[in-house]
Amino acid sequence: MDLEKLFRPRSIAVVGISKKNPLSPGRIVLLKNEFEMEVKVYGIYPNGGEIEGIQLYERLDQLPEIPDLLVIAVGPDDTLEYIKECGDLGIPASVIIGGGFAEIGGKGKKRQERLEKIAFESDIAVLGPNCLGVYAPPIVDTIFLPTERITRPPKGSVALISQSGGVLVDQFFVKFNERNIGVSTAVSIGNRAVVDEVMLLEYFSRVDPETTNIAFYLEGFKEGRARDFLQLAKESEDTVIVFFGGKTREGKVATQSHTASLAGNYKIIYDALRQHYIIQPHSERELLTCLKVFDILAKKRNPFGDNVITFGDVAIVSVSGGHAVLASDMLKKYGLNAVRFSHQEKRDLKSLMNPVAAEIASFNNPIDLTGSVLDTDIENIIRYLSDVERIECIILLLLPYPPNISFQIGRRVANIITSKNKPVVCFVPYVSKYSLIIESLELANIPVFHSIKETVQAVSALKQRTRVDNLKLKNMFWE
Amino acid sequence: MDLEKLFRPRSIAVVGISKKNPLSPGRIVLLKNEFEMEVKVYGIYPNGGEIEGIQLYERLDQLPEIPDLLVIAVGPDDTLEYIKECGDLGIPASVIIGGGFAEIGGKGKKRQERLEKIAFESDIAVLGPNCLGVYAPPIVDTIFLPTERITRPPKGSVALISQSGGVLVDQFFVKFNERNIGVSTAVSIGNRAVVDEVMLLEYFSRVDPETTNIAFYLEGFKEGRARDFLQLAKESEDTVIVFFGGKTREGKVATQSHTASLAGNYKIIYDALRQHYIIQPHSERELLTCLKVFDILAKKRNPFGDNVITFGDVAIVSVSGGHAVLASDMLKKYGLNAVRFSHQEKRDLKSLMNPVAAEIASFNNPIDLTGSVLDTDIENIIRYLSDVERIECIILLLLPYPPNISFQIGRRVANIITSKNKPVVCFVPYVSKYSLIIESLELANIPVFHSIKETVQAVSALKQRTRVDNLKLKNMFWE
Repeated sequence: MDLEKLFRPRSIAVVGISKKNPLSPGRIVLLKNEFEMEVKVYGIYPNGGEIEGIQLYERLDQLPEIPDLLVIAVGPDDTLEYIKECGDLGIPASVIIGGGFAEIGGKGKKRQERLEKIAFESDIAVLGPNCLGVYAPPIVDTIFLPTERITRPPKGSVALISQSGGVLVDQFFVKFNERNIGVSTAVSIGNRAVVDEVMLLEYFSRVDPETTNIAFYLEGFKEGRARDFLQLAKESEDTVIVFFGGKTREGKVATQSHTASLAGNYKIIYDALRQHYIIQPHSERELLTCLKVFDILAKKRNPFGDNVITFGDVAIVSVSGGHAVLASDMLKKYGLNAVRFSHQEKRDLKSLMNPVAAEIASFNNPIDLTGSVLDTDIENIIRYLSDVERIECIILLLLPYPPNISFQIGRRVANIITSKNKPVVCFVPYVSKYSLIIESLELANIPVFHSIKETVQAVSALKQRTRVDNLKLKNMFWE
Repeated sequence: MDLEKLFRPRSIAVVGISKKNPLSPGRIVLLKNEFEMEVKVYGIYPNGGEIEGIQLYERLDQLPEIPDLLVIAVGPDDTLEYIKECGDLGIPASVIIGGGFAEIGGKGKKRQERLEKIAFESDIAVLGPNCLGVYAPPIVDTIFLPTERITRPPKGSVALISQSGGVLVDQFFVKFNERNIGVSTAVSIGNRAVVDEVMLLEYFSRVDPETTNIAFYLEGFKEGRARDFLQLAKESEDTVIVFFGGKTREGKVATQSHTASLAGNYKIIYDALRQHYIIQPHSERELLTCLKVFDILAKKRNPFGDNVITFGDVAIVSVSGGHAVLASDMLKKYGLNAVRFSHQEKRDLKSLMNPVAAEIASFNNPIDLTGSVLDTDIENIIRYLSDVERIECIILLLLPYPPNISFQIGRRVANIITSKNKPVVCFVPYVSKYSLIIESLELANIPVFHSIKETVQAVSALKQRTRVDNLKLKNMFWE
C-alpha cells in the first residue's frame, strides 16, 4: 500500500462540500488546500458551479486527472460508495473524516468491515474513518478545523501520529509551537480501519526522508498488530516514542467509549516496549521534552557533537541556590547523578570567579554562582566544566535577574558550548524580556527549557536515547 | 516583636548607596521605593549630597524622623554597627541584604550570633541577613534586583515566604503572574537569624487582614522551631501550604551549601505536617495550582458557594475524547473518582444535545461531546450535571477548535456556573486567540488551567482543602 500518495499527494479531490454552510468540513478542507497549501485541489459538488472562484466538478470521473488522494466528508453509507469509486478509478489514497463506523458499534462495525475489504482488495491507503487526517506542510492539510482556530507547529524532524484528533491539534500542535518543536508530518488515525500504526511506523522509518523521530499517542495497539509494531521499532534507525493514554483503569473505561481500544495491561506493554528500544515518557510534558531535544539533535548543526550520556553524570551550575536545590531533588528520579568535584577542581572553579562572588559562591555540585555573578564568571565556569571528561552533561540554570548579567549572556554562553561540544541544557525563565537570551541559545541549537523539571527531564531523555542507540548497535553486532 | 513595621512601614531608610554604581543594591532599593512605592524613603550617604533629586543624609540620627525600617546593604561588620544604631535610635525593623554570616560558616557564624543577640535585646524585627527582603505592594519593595528585570505578581490573598530569593522572584513571581495568582506580601527570609518561619506564620495568620493563604518554600525548619510551627499551623484559620526543597539525598547536599538547612528525614516531616493540616504539594506546579484555586476562593464573589468536595466525585465533560482519556488516567492518582451515570441520566444527557452530536457523543463518564458540539449543548450539559447532587465537581475540558463553538462560550458557561454554585474547573488551551474565552471565565472567578494535569490537580486541591477545613472544625469540637 503506497502511503506516499497519502502524505505527499500532487493532487487531491474533496467530496462533501456545502454551498450554504461555510463551516462544513469539506468546504473548509477545500479552501484550506486551495489557498494555503501547495497541492492541486479539486472540489466535487452534485450540481457543479463554484465556491470562492474554485470550479466544482459534478463527479469524480469528470476531473481532468486522477487525483492522488480523495478526502471524504459525507455520511457513512455514501462514504462506502466513494471508496468503491476510488477502486474503480484507481485513486490510491483516501482520508475519511466522518464517523458512523466501528466507534458506534452494531451496524457501524459491519460498515467498517466492508470498508476494510474494499480498501485492501483495491489497494487504497485509507486513513480513518473518524479522523482529522493529515497535516504535511507545505503540501497538504486535511484538518477540517478552521485555520483561524488552529495553531500550527513549525517544520521539523518529528512524525506525529495520534489516535485522538483533539490531542493532536491541542496538546501537540499548541505545545510543539510553544517549544519550537518541528513536525515533518502529523497524522490523526481515527479508527485506523486500514492504515494503522504499523504501516505508519514502516513508512516513516523506511520511506520518508524528512523524519528521524516518530512519536505516537495511542490508546492501545490495533488487535493483532502489537508484535509487528515492536519488531519494526526494534529495527528502526529512527527514535520511536510511544505515549499511551488509558494506562489506568479509569482511563481504560474512557478509551472504550473514545476509540474502542483495549488498552490491555499497561505493565506488560511497558516492558515489551522497553525491550524493543521504544522510549516511553511518563507524562505529556516528558514526551514534549524528549521531542524537543531529539528534534534539535536531528539538525545539521548539532552543538553536542558525538558526546553521549551513558551514566547520567551531570554538573549543575545555577545563579540561584534554591533552583540548584530543586534541580538536585529531581536528579535521582530521572536516573542522573551529580559528579563530585575534587578539592583541586573546587579551588580551580573558585579562582575563575570575580572576587566578590568567589567569596559567597559555593563550589560543590550544584555550583551556586549567586546573584553577584558576572557574564565572565559564567563563561569561565562553563568552559572549565566542559573540559572535565567525566561530566557528561551540564545543567545551566540561567536566571538573568542579577544586575550584572548582561543580555549578551545567551550568545556568550552559546559560543563556548558550540566550541566545546559538551552537552549543555539550559533553564531560562519564560519571560518576554528574556527572549533575546533564549533566542541566542536556540539559534545555536542549544535546548532551553522554562521549568526546572523539564530541564532535568531533557538530560534524562538524552541519556535514554544514548541507551537506545547503544542497544541497537549492540543488537546489530550480537544478534 | 512588631512585624507590622517590617511589612507595612510608613518610612524607610537605606544604607549602602553607591554614587558611582547605578546597579548597587542600596541605590536600586532607594530609587525603587522613591519612584514606585508609597513608603517615604530616606537615603544615607557619608558625605550627603543627592541622587536623582533625592536628598541624602550623612547619618541616621540626622533624619527628620525615626524610620520604621532600615534597609542595610553594606558589608557584614558595618551591618552589625547599623543594627546597634537601630537599637539606640529605636528603629523597630531592619532588612539585611548582604551576606557574610552563618552561610559562610566560621567567623560568619559568630557574627550571626552577635546579630541575633542585639536584635532580640533591642526588639528589632530583623529580616535576613542574606536575603531579598520584602515585597508588599503598594507600600514597600526591598528587592534589590532592577525593576526592568523583575516580573511582579498581582495583589491578592497569598503571603509567600521563601528561603530562596531566586525561587521567590523567578519560580513564584513569574508563575504567579502567568496564572494570575495574587500576593499580599512576599518575603525572602535568607538566613532567618531573627525573623523566622514561626514568627511569619503567626503574623500572617493572626495579624495581617489581607492574607488568607500562607505559602512557604523551605529547605528545612529552623532548629528547634518545627514544633511551634506545627502548632501554629494547626490553630490557623488560614490555609497553610509548605513546599519543601531538599527532599532527596541529592537535594539535601545542595541545601547544605545553600541555606545550611538540615532538611532531616522528609518522611517524618511529611507525616507531621499532614497531621497538622498543612497542605504539601508534591511539585511546584501543584503548589501553584493549589494557590490559584485558593486565591480565587478567597475572593468575595466565590462562584462555588459553600459546596465542598468530600469524596472527590467528579464528572468530566470534554470536547475531545483523547483529552477525556488523559484526564481520566489522572483521577486516581489525585484521589478523585468518576461518578457513574444511570441509564436514565445517560438518556437525559443525550436528549439535551443537538441531533448530529447526540449520535456520536458518548455519555459515560467522561462525557465526550465530540467536535460536532454547539454552545447550547455545553450549556445544557453543564446545567444538568450541576443539579446532580452526588457530582461534587465538574471538570470541563473546553477546546474551542470545533467550528460551531462560539467565542461567547466562556461567558455563557460562566453564567450557568455562577447561577448553580457547583464547583467547575476548566481547561482551555493557552493560545492567545482564546484569551477572550479564558478572560470571561476568570472574570467570573472560575479557575481556568492550561494543562489537563493542572486541571485535575486543582480539583484535588479543592478536596484537600475541604478535608483540612473539616479536620479543623472537628478539632474545635472534639479535642
